[in-house]
Amino acid sequence: MSHPLFDRHRKTLESATAAIRNRTYWSAYPEVPSGKIYGETAKQDGLAAFKARLGQPFELDQPGSIGRVGDEASPFGLSLGVNYPKADPDALLHAAGAALPDWRDAGIEARTGICLEILHRLNQRSFEIANAVMHTTGQAFMMAFQAGGPHAQDRGLEALAYAYEEMSRTPEQVTWQKQVGKEEFVTLNKKFRLIPRGIGLVIGCSTFPTWNGYPGIFASLATGNAVVVKPHPGAILPLAITVEIAREVLKENDLDPNLVTLVADTVDAPITKDLVIRPEIKIIDYTGGSAFGDWIENNARQAVVFTEKAGVNSMILDSVDNLKPVSGNLAFSLSLYSGQMCTTPQNIFIPKDGIRVGGEQKSFDEVAQAIVGAVDWFLGDAKRAAEVLGGIQNEATTGRIAQAAAQGGRVLRQSEPVRNEAFPEARVHSPLILQVESGQKDLYMREMFGPIVYIVATENTEQSIKLAAQTAREHGAITCGIYSTDEDVLAAAEEAISDAGVPLSCNLTGQIFVNQSAAFSDFHVSGANPAGNATLCDAAFVANRFRVVQSRAPVTVEASSTA
Amino acid sequence: MSHPLFDRHRKTLESATAAIRNRTYWSAYPEVPSGKIYGETAKQDGLAAFKARLGQPFELDQPGSIGRVGDEASPFGLSLGVNYPKADPDALLHAAGAALPDWRDAGIEARTGICLEILHRLNQRSFEIANAVMHTTGQAFMMAFQAGGPHAQDRGLEALAYAYEEMSRTPEQVTWQKQVGKEEFVTLNKKFRLIPRGIGLVIGCSTFPTWNGYPGIFASLATGNAVVVKPHPGAILPLAITVEIAREVLKENDLDPNLVTLVADTVDAPITKDLVIRPEIKIIDYTGGSAFGDWIENNARQAVVFTEKAGVNSMILDSVDNLKPVSGNLAFSLSLYSGQMCTTPQNIFIPKDGIRVGGEQKSFDEVAQAIVGAVDWFLGDAKRAAEVLGGIQNEATTGRIAQAAAQGGRVLRQSEPVRNEAFPEARVHSPLILQVESGQKDLYMREMFGPIVYIVATENTEQSIKLAAQTAREHGAITCGIYSTDEDVLAAAEEAISDAGVPLSCNLTGQIFVNQSAAFSDFHVSGANPAGNATLCDAAFVANRFRVVQSRAPVTVEASSTA
Repeated sequence: MSHPLFDRHRKTLESATAAIRNRTYWSAYPEVPSGKIYGETAKQDGLAAFKARLGQPFELDQPGSIGRVGDEASPFGLSLGVNYPKADPDALLHAAGAALPDWRDAGIEARTGICLEILHRLNQRSFEIANAVMHTTGQAFMMAFQAGGPHAQDRGLEALAYAYEEMSRTPEQVTWQKQVGKEEFVTLNKKFRLIPRGIGLVIGCSTFPTWNGYPGIFASLATGNAVVVKPHPGAILPLAITVEIAREVLKENDLDPNLVTLVADTVDAPITKDLVIRPEIKIIDYTGGSAFGDWIENNARQAVVFTEKAGVNSMILDSVDNLKPVSGNLAFSLSLYSGQMCTTPQNIFIPKDGIRVGGEQKSFDEVAQAIVGAVDWFLGDAKRAAEVLGGIQNEATTGRIAQAAAQGGRVLRQSEPVRNEAFPEARVHSPLILQVESGQKDLYMREMFGPIVYIVATENTEQSIKLAAQTAREHGAITCGIYSTDEDVLAAAEEAISDAGVPLSCNLTGQIFVNQSAAFSDFHVSGANPAGNATLCDAAFVANRFRVVQSRAPVTVEASSTA
Repeated sequence: MSHPLFDRHRKTLESATAAIRNRTYWSAYPEVPSGKIYGETAKQDGLAAFKARLGQPFELDQPGSIGRVGDEASPFGLSLGVNYPKADPDALLHAAGAALPDWRDAGIEARTGICLEILHRLNQRSFEIANAVMHTTGQAFMMAFQAGGPHAQDRGLEALAYAYEEMSRTPEQVTWQKQVGKEEFVTLNKKFRLIPRGIGLVIGCSTFPTWNGYPGIFASLATGNAVVVKPHPGAILPLAITVEIAREVLKENDLDPNLVTLVADTVDAPITKDLVIRPEIKIIDYTGGSAFGDWIENNARQAVVFTEKAGVNSMILDSVDNLKPVSGNLAFSLSLYSGQMCTTPQNIFIPKDGIRVGGEQKSFDEVAQAIVGAVDWFLGDAKRAAEVLGGIQNEATTGRIAQAAAQGGRVLRQSEPVRNEAFPEARVHSPLILQVESGQKDLYMREMFGPIVYIVATENTEQSIKLAAQTAREHGAITCGIYSTDEDVLAAAEEAISDAGVPLSCNLTGQIFVNQSAAFSDFHVSGANPAGNATLCDAAFVANRFRVVQSRAPVTVEASSTA
């Protein structure tokens, strides 16, 4: 039972499926925000579409709207003034539930085809979404375009490809014949139905609403579930546009748009906890802080729960050929989006006696100063600084910088406000770099989200590796990096860090950074330490979102002859 | 990196993998207990091996043995007198953990090959294991052989095939190249490591210790975990033999046998709760009662939990061409192993005005009496009765029969003790059949484990279907059957019953029964109602037992040229 949209996008799906098998580089949606690719007017059209949203009610014709809600503020100082339907959960969940049977019965190809079309439309709207991501998360435009647009779409497609593969494993029907006597057979016709779990809840985060939201949305939707999207109150717009587009595509295909709905709230009147424990919610995808993630894991007993929480990422310096490309690479990693990526290193472990650089030993201070100097140089250019740092999403993060500086450690680099020429009101602060001793675990062995970096003086690399692994085991970690010229050190780190469930990036220099995670190739979050219980993406991320239920009946002589 | 045992059994694995994809009939291990297949002396050898166990300490050279424990009694009256090492969990779990790194590093093919060899050895020991299953569960010999031997081995192989497929999805290594400039590329070498969760705990049940135990054992073991087997105190021996064989194969292959260990206990001093919440236990496979299963799901927060609990199974009678083959088929289903299968129907829904039989309407009483009569006839032959009924595993089940008779409903068929010629001390009771009204939900809409059957008089088939679905939703269900000559009724039942997460068997007559679940084709338990959260088997049953953790490093010019 094929579907026109499935046929239209089949090549994309096949390429995605091949990519997740061989894990070589592949991308469906171009990351370059070029007019040649997206259309010459795409950039200004997207900006205009975004601006037209400002100060306006965001209309979604979903049921159970009981007023308006929304209070987003751009970290770049722009007043958004957008409000969204305030949802009555009873009415909304009832409508979502009512949409399920037709969606289930539409079949694998129809559901997959419609999801592919939604992704295609999202891609076409990448510039508009980029502006929405920029002015909610604080990401600078280029990053907002790439991470919030094509890379997010790639992650959604990746989940979709896994879902399609899992759903296609089992045939719809089979004739089963068993010999039960010398000339006696039992012949059964068996039908296998995919039964969705019900309604999935996707809880978005404030920093990467689409990148972290799309995998759960498409994994749940493709496998026959309805999806209620609950964005972070600070980053509603990107997901509201996403919901709008999904509903459009569903409607065009004579399907109930209430399969995808939005529930918005504010920081002052949060409603996520109430949703999380609703009996109708059978799947939860959560991205956000660890405390609330842990609460969900422990309290949403009625649902299958996938979490991507927070961690404390480590960088281990052991030995390098040349310090400059290393400190330069690190400076970019530490500065990018002001350290607000879940993949940004927080702790840099350096032996207290320093490291080998090329032929000679450099002292701890020299290495630490090289990193500080690289950050200084990197942010010395105001335009580049603005483009890389972006804005601080949450006021609380700004407060945390001062708090960190006051709590202890030696300040190697003071955090300072940075002026963004284009957005003078933007909330921008450069990274704070502190030096601490390996024994000061109360300072560095905890998550300090934002542009806060600890350079930790250790006994030696062995201790550095041990502390990085311990941090991951106890507090979670999503990335770890190491610089070493010694194969044995690299092997030991790989063993210890992998065992703590953290992917390891070795000796990255040039245009590749520890923060980056590529769809179809890199597994984001391992599910093997407290930073989350799931991976983007693997089979485990999709296989339990639906169940197979069969029926079987004897094939009778009459039935055979009429078949 | 292949392995001799993998190569030796490769064909078996390939056939299993094909079977779970196409779901046609297939079996690796012959179900006929024939000397031609298993060797002319296999039957007496197996019996002798079993007898040699009786009254003896069961030796397992596993660490942390602090005494002896064990108190099994055969439902057939035999005194087993076997005792097992009493395990100190600290020492045992420490040893299991210490065995993990080598097992992980052995690789996919070695682990899979060793699991295949263990299954092969189990198959060779099917007669011995059959006697152990018989004299712990109360299954008659033929069933103990089939369900406890080859069918259990098939289920283990099925889980192994799923595990192998999941582990093989991701390459061990890949070169990833992305263009980042006009002539600039980033080239990374990525390595993907499979990281086991840690130690898996398999909690066995008293009725099908091997059939329900093997999937979890092989799924966890193959994916790199250690397995602690915790049998039901009433059915230790079959799993103790299993552990013994697994340890033998591991030792022969220079691997640490403590990857598979046994923890035995008694009803009076149970230790399962303590194990379930141990931080070392990262995976739990549980088969057994719903109350304890729910407790595990709610309390084992540190582990991935797979449960197969209990349910209340329904049979719906709507219309038949001929009553005799239907009542005969039902009589066997109700009698087999005295209703102690998790797949046995408990409630038979019949419209109060009766059903169409061929051309004519038969009254409710006529249909009910036909079922009662078929059971009477079936059990009228003492030898056949003994072979089909087996023994009552648990004294409490006997008590439940009297309790059910006293609580209400009209007794259509009294349960009676049945004499087993071969084992005069055997605990055997024929099925109790009660008639109740559809409103008496307090009587029938609850699990009454054992040879207890309710025939429920409903308004019509529509209500029958509704009540069967409601029962499944509220109390869980593992099977449902229907007899109808009306395609619309069958379609409506399929829709409602599937939606309640229950596989439906339609119009079974002859040598196929609603109780039966075939490995490689039938999904046992859906995971979509309270009867369990997992299926035997699907990808979700295996994919989350390990995680993929990667490392990546730039491919340098030197590295390329030496490659």
